[in-house]
Amino acid sequence: MEDEIHHECGVCGFYGVENAADFAYYALHSLQHRGQQGCGITTFDNGKMLTHKGIGLVGEVFNKQNIADLTGSIAIGHVRYPTTDVGGIENVQPLTFRHHTGDFALVHNGNIINSKELRMMLENRGSLFQTTSDSELFAHLIKKDRTEEHRIYNINEALSMLQGAFSMVIMTTNRLYVCRDKFGFHPLSLARLGNGYMVASETCAFDAVGAEFIRDIEPGEILSIDHHGLRSSHYSDDKHHKMCIMEFIYFARPDSDIEGCNVHTFRHNSGRLLYEECKVKADIVVGVPDSSLSAAIGYSEASGIPYEMGLVKSKYVARTFIQPTQELRSRGVKMKLSPVRSVVAGKSLVLIDDSIVRGTTSKQIVSLLRDAGAKEVHLCIASPKYAFPCYYGVDTGTYEELLGSHYTVEQMREFIGADSLHFLSKEALFKAGNRTDMCAACFTGQYPTEIYKS
Amino acid sequence: MEDEIHHECGVCGFYGVENAADFAYYALHSLQHRGQQGCGITTFDNGKMLTHKGIGLVGEVFNKQNIADLTGSIAIGHVRYPTTDVGGIENVQPLTFRHHTGDFALVHNGNIINSKELRMMLENRGSLFQTTSDSELFAHLIKKDRTEEHRIYNINEALSMLQGAFSMVIMTTNRLYVCRDKFGFHPLSLARLGNGYMVASETCAFDAVGAEFIRDIEPGEILSIDHHGLRSSHYSDDKHHKMCIMEFIYFARPDSDIEGCNVHTFRHNSGRLLYEECKVKADIVVGVPDSSLSAAIGYSEASGIPYEMGLVKSKYVARTFIQPTQELRSRGVKMKLSPVRSVVAGKSLVLIDDSIVRGTTSKQIVSLLRDAGAKEVHLCIASPKYAFPCYYGVDTGTYEELLGSHYTVEQMREFIGADSLHFLSKEALFKAGNRTDMCAACFTGQYPTEIYKS
Amino acid sequence: MEDEIHHECGVCGFYGVENAADFAYYALHSLQHRGQQGCGITTFDNGKMLTHKGIGLVGEVFNKQNIADLTGSIAIGHVRYPTTDVGGIENVQPLTFRHHTGDFALVHNGNIINSKELRMMLENRGSLFQTTSDSELFAHLIKKDRTEEHRIYNINEALSMLQGAFSMVIMTTNRLYVCRDKFGFHPLSLARLGNGYMVASETCAFDAVGAEFIRDIEPGEILSIDHHGLRSSHYSDDKHHKMCIMEFIYFARPDSDIEGCNVHTFRHNSGRLLYEECKVKADIVVGVPDSSLSAAIGYSEASGIPYEMGLVKSKYVARTFIQPTQELRSRGVKMKLSPVRSVVAGKSLVLIDDSIVRGTTSKQIVSLLRDAGAKEVHLCIASPKYAFPCYYGVDTGTYEELLGSHYTVEQMREFIGADSLHFLSKEALFKAGNRTDMCAACFTGQYPTEIYKS
Amino acid sequence: MEDEIHHECGVCGFYGVENAADFAYYALHSLQHRGQQGCGITTFDNGKMLTHKGIGLVGEVFNKQNIADLTGSIAIGHVRYPTTDVGGIENVQPLTFRHHTGDFALVHNGNIINSKELRMMLENRGSLFQTTSDSELFAHLIKKDRTEEHRIYNINEALSMLQGAFSMVIMTTNRLYVCRDKFGFHPLSLARLGNGYMVASETCAFDAVGAEFIRDIEPGEILSIDHHGLRSSHYSDDKHHKMCIMEFIYFARPDSDIEGCNVHTFRHNSGRLLYEECKVKADIVVGVPDSSLSAAIGYSEASGIPYEMGLVKSKYVARTFIQPTQELRSRGVKMKLSPVRSVVAGKSLVLIDDSIVRGTTSKQIVSLLRDAGAKEVHLCIASPKYAFPCYYGVDTGTYEELLGSHYTVEQMREFIGADSLHFLSKEALFKAGNRTDMCAACFTGQYPTEIYKS
Repeated sequence: MEDEIHHECGVCGFYGVENAADFAYYALHSLQHRGQQGCGITTFDNGKMLTHKGIGLVGEVFNKQNIADLTGSIAIGHVRYPTTDVGGIENVQPLTFRHHTGDFALVHNGNIINSKELRMMLENRGSLFQTTSDSELFAHLIKKDRTEEHRIYNINEALSMLQGAFSMVIMTTNRLYVCRDKFGFHPLSLARLGNGYMVASETCAFDAVGAEFIRDIEPGEILSIDHHGLRSSHYSDDKHHKMCIMEFIYFARPDSDIEGCNVHTFRHNSGRLLYEECKVKADIVVGVPDSSLSAAIGYSEASGIPYEMGLVKSKYVARTFIQPTQELRSRGVKMKLSPVRSVVAGKSLVLIDDSIVRGTTSKQIVSLLRDAGAKEVHLCIASPKYAFPCYYGVDTGTYEELLGSHYTVEQMREFIGADSLHFLSKEALFKAGNRTDMCAACFTGQYPTEIYKS
Repeated sequence: MEDEIHHECGVCGFYGVENAADFAYYALHSLQHRGQQGCGITTFDNGKMLTHKGIGLVGEVFNKQNIADLTGSIAIGHVRYPTTDVGGIENVQPLTFRHHTGDFALVHNGNIINSKELRMMLENRGSLFQTTSDSELFAHLIKKDRTEEHRIYNINEALSMLQGAFSMVIMTTNRLYVCRDKFGFHPLSLARLGNGYMVASETCAFDAVGAEFIRDIEPGEILSIDHHGLRSSHYSDDKHHKMCIMEFIYFARPDSDIEGCNVHTFRHNSGRLLYEECKVKADIVVGVPDSSLSAAIGYSEASGIPYEMGLVKSKYVARTFIQPTQELRSRGVKMKLSPVRSVVAGKSLVLIDDSIVRGTTSKQIVSLLRDAGAKEVHLCIASPKYAFPCYYGVDTGTYEELLGSHYTVEQMREFIGADSLHFLSKEALFKAGNRTDMCAACFTGQYPTEIYKS
Repeated sequence: MEDEIHHECGVCGFYGVENAADFAYYALHSLQHRGQQGCGITTFDNGKMLTHKGIGLVGEVFNKQNIADLTGSIAIGHVRYPTTDVGGIENVQPLTFRHHTGDFALVHNGNIINSKELRMMLENRGSLFQTTSDSELFAHLIKKDRTEEHRIYNINEALSMLQGAFSMVIMTTNRLYVCRDKFGFHPLSLARLGNGYMVASETCAFDAVGAEFIRDIEPGEILSIDHHGLRSSHYSDDKHHKMCIMEFIYFARPDSDIEGCNVHTFRHNSGRLLYEECKVKADIVVGVPDSSLSAAIGYSEASGIPYEMGLVKSKYVARTFIQPTQELRSRGVKMKLSPVRSVVAGKSLVLIDDSIVRGTTSKQIVSLLRDAGAKEVHLCIASPKYAFPCYYGVDTGTYEELLGSHYTVEQMREFIGADSLHFLSKEALFKAGNRTDMCAACFTGQYPTEIYKS
Repeated sequence: MEDEIHHECGVCGFYGVENAADFAYYALHSLQHRGQQGCGITTFDNGKMLTHKGIGLVGEVFNKQNIADLTGSIAIGHVRYPTTDVGGIENVQPLTFRHHTGDFALVHNGNIINSKELRMMLENRGSLFQTTSDSELFAHLIKKDRTEEHRIYNINEALSMLQGAFSMVIMTTNRLYVCRDKFGFHPLSLARLGNGYMVASETCAFDAVGAEFIRDIEPGEILSIDHHGLRSSHYSDDKHHKMCIMEFIYFARPDSDIEGCNVHTFRHNSGRLLYEECKVKADIVVGVPDSSLSAAIGYSEASGIPYEMGLVKSKYVARTFIQPTQELRSRGVKMKLSPVRSVVAGKSLVLIDDSIVRGTTSKQIVSLLRDAGAKEVHLCIASPKYAFPCYYGVDTGTYEELLGSHYTVEQMREFIGADSLHFLSKEALFKAGNRTDMCAACFTGQYPTEIYKS
């Protein structure tokens, strides 16, 4: 029973880059925070499709030999987020397809909200699915019998049928198609790498391999990359900018820029604005590592209250780590977060966190800090109350358990055990990014699309 | 060719703790930063000595089954630091010994400087060594033929012959002997755990398993823990307090307290004092993650210059990660540190780092930041110039390559490519910890002991 | 460049057997000789489809935990033969499919000779393939939109379209469909296991788990097994008995019975008949282990020439074994077969082998024996000259390299370096099994079906 | 609770052979039957001692990289037999020792019967042991402080103190010392390999790497191999030939020659003689694979009763194989041996086995055969009644459980459930090898040495 919001994966693609898999490896490593369950890379070399994928971190799944075997100058890669209830190796991307009009492979992140309806339609037309992945759904939509040169029309039609969020890279033997849904829910950007091109879910992947940022893929855009260079089209005129606000708040790496806005800067701003809305009197400001540190620094700056390292997070978390049993936990064994006793003892704290999902982690942290001697713990959340489930690719555990959906702020405070509890306003959040064109449905319940409830 | 100072391992011990190996596992995990090459745990259960050890992280070497097999309420554990030139599995501790007067096992960290002389002496007396570990040396010194009740005399005599640094835990079938060298070079502390006792290299291990700190082991102390409880003696009247200053600056976890001083607080103070000595005018303060963040916060507070997250460190570093080749590095591939472009571009920076060893990492970081658009990079080191090799358990790579040993500060600045370069004074460092009784030989060349140069 | 005929896999299925996966594990282990590259098991438990599969031997891929996770009393399993050029994990069976009319899984062995044509037809109708496996092809043929109760009609139609060899088990949530092609190329038998049923490629799997043989699945039969018990139908009136003669000669385990004939007995008979046709005068009879020992015993009995263990085969061949380099081989390093020097030295030998494919192994064995001092080596093959490629599921390496397809017997003898070379006649082979209704196309070129050459 | 006699390991050594580890790898593979728990190789390259060892089969422990890392033209290797109660990785050989007079490594097989006394003596003199291995004991005996040139004297003295069985190879930086106990209990032979030399426990290792047999190491011999060539001496004038008779009966590979006698031939003869002593009337002769097949062939030849393959043994036994639970066994699941139903059904059998230890395996086999329809099962053992424990390196499980030590032949027959039970006489066994100078203490209780009972 984890109390964490999960990423819905990260993708990358390479065209015209010698030994593209070498670069895909380091790019995926820099995107590892978007998914730790599994990963994979597919390349084409002289028309031969080559894949290696597996369960585990990038550094575990790949080795020198299997990377070297992935020859070719065109590649796509994927990291997958961890989940226990869905699928093993068969859901790890890239998914690869064999067809007499040309083999192809694809990777995506996001969530298609009409997938159930589309699957039923496709099955009625004769499709047969082997996975529960939306990538497979999409492959079936575009597989129609046209020559590769006309595949763009299929893709266009296929995308028009999809409702929901997707950032996708399709690779054929000699071309990438890079697509983003018409709301632009999740980031996807383009860069130059040597004489070729690269796309990735976050710009931190460009820095990791020395690529030079060109621009973001636009909502509704289909960018094809081949020996003709770049060709852009749009599958829909109905474009919006509805970037997922949780990308800024929690998911993305602080060194990434999303649609022109640096993630760390966004969080830093949100911390400053949090102080404007909630001027707690306290001895020190403490952030919950790692994602809340930027906001905590902002709060400290704005308030003049010293920023302190009151919590330390272990960085050696192997995938195979043994979780402590309930009995060991009750005897005091903890794993990820430790309080810095001498920093917090006898102090009143402003504790900054990015969000509250089920509230159990917040409850534990407050308890940890009190046990370490904290006099007061004022919990300030650098985002509004998370009260509505996401349908666009964010997994918030069991949705019914969203604490904010059925508790008042005061009830939440009591559950968590903090001395006070404050949330940032939606307006301040928009101000932090200096934009309002974001999807904040998890806070507001205002979904940009129709929702298909099952 | 790494440019990193390496820890000389971490140790822990448990007495009177049911299923002691369960706790040793989490304790070692919290000490993982002191050594990532290998680890091991040994227990006694009804006189039977049980060991599991291996190459890899704690989360890789141990699993539910092999932990469960390590029955017993007495245990010792060890994490070993990575090195390529010395030894494989045979040097991973605990080392275990079988003797008709009773089997025993031991773990230690530190470095014995007269080990070569002692080995020769022991070999001339008939000893035969299977490893290059000082633990084996010590075992041979104490193995003399007395009953276990009198082993304390052997230990006393044996410790008197050792010159150098050691924090050691010896386990017999029903007793722990916990020893620290007479200079107290490296930390070792005692805590209560349930109805039993626990010792560990750092207090963060106590927090990890819910143990309650009692006191530090004293320099020169031999603490025996058995069914009589605690009994303390000293093998030498010639006691000193010469705690390794690098434990505060670099090695220990920020949430650990060493001899009453919190590590984060020490670093935070050193950052404040660094500003007193070196008032750089700049737009932002940036720390090199992770060990320099506390000092950077201190510098920011003292200076009023905003603390910013200008560098991000990847946290998903698997042991099997493929290092980029020189060719890939020249094409821009990097692995551990990424600059936050939008934070540093166009800014003049105070860059805070904890120390400079060979200087190659500093050079790379400055270069990274300039490539990301930094206007000025002023490098401020939160410790003095590292100019003298350590003989007490710190591995500074190839000692001849200590940049500070043959370069002036100006030559170092030029090599590194920074706009300016400043070091904290020794006096300020002592002030940061509010104590002068530390070993700072790496900065001063004043070694507390005689040195046996090979 | 291996000189071996490869099996085309083994299958098993279980219905109404508590913890079916436990039994599947031991059944697959007994079928391991039919495929060593990979293996897998799928079960249904309360409508939930559960799969574990991987690259490696049964004893490597499965462990207590993953077997225990495969709950349910219905299961299918598969072992896959090794090949380097086709596919990784995605071709390992069972293949699993998700459909709104009910999920299903399947395993098969054999080879569909019109698969290319069927794939094209299906792709034109909208199918999309992810593997190169015939199992996937079959799944697409039967996936049509009918309720599960009527799936039998789909299966009937689908099987009618397939040309070639297949032994197949389809598992839905509560039923097995067990099918065998209308020529009955490869074996597939039915047994009772406790209160339930079991099917397997060879009867040795029944013995391995204590199941009681009932009967063989008939050519062209579709046997459905569910809570109604057994229901048999046939998809074709055009039935034949064309059991692959290589199953008797080489593939199957000697303790298996195929269509009423024990494999060891067949081989033993063939050895006796080989002497009738070829009365070599020699000191001893030596068989090439393991598949030729039965024939060698038969030859010895018929001839009165003592049977001797002139060759020994290493049984500790791990999958990861390092093949000796050409340089090491030239210096005398060998791996699998060793001559028993004192048995063969100075003797004239009748060497019995089951077949000759490329001839390179025979050449090496003759050379080994001569180096060990054999005076004469008369090679007697317990089957006719293998001269025609198989299209029904036997992989004979590179087909062009069939020594028998372009060499006379004398040329073969010279290539191999034997003193004489003899083949068993086709008539004798039929006599060994006391039946003529077998497929012997590899010896005769008379294929029972049309051949689609690519 | 296994009912198997275990080998006490196998050794090999190489001098003057370029890339010696390459050859050691294949030699150890051919000796794998002597021990499957663990294995290791140590080389010297320019005075640097290099070791790789681990738990598992040769094909699992070694890979291309770690073999390639073991540079040098001098090497020793070891395979270790499986046992659950003694030791993990620390007992896997070679054991390596570091000494100022020169590092050295050693491997051995056998058992020192006065080891307890020698360990006590050595500990009283100051030795400290880390393992329970006799190799370590021996290293302590020879470690005295002399230059390497005089080490031969130490070895001479050391060997004189050892009582029991040992075949040993000691490697210093540039020399091998090859030693065999004065009774010559276990085999050890010398061969030429290219321009260098090789020694191994069995001659099958010579065949595996293309080495040419020179001679056996003599009882009591110390052979030194270095740049002077071969130099032989003896540590004792009191030499005997007491080769372990179980090497012929059970342990060694049939293609090995032991002291001039081929193992297969010995067994074949014993089968012929068994018929002379025990003329059973039966339909077929069946041997228990693999070690009893030679004797079964001999019995068949002598009797004229056809030799049949009535039992088949699975060859795909991975180390990680899951043993069937008692419940599964009771439901009919079996693993290693399967009866060939159609061969044995309705027949009266002579079943040939090599020996009976606890009798449980024999009982199971008889039961298996009866379940498969055998009418009569006459069990003929190709050796006398095993009634006395071995102290020279053969592990017969729990010694108290030797069925033959407290049961009459008739009681044994009843326990096993055979129709009749016969043992070969000791005289016939000696005749089979055409020699009487063997240790047959397990049959006679006449131990060649004094026994130290604990």
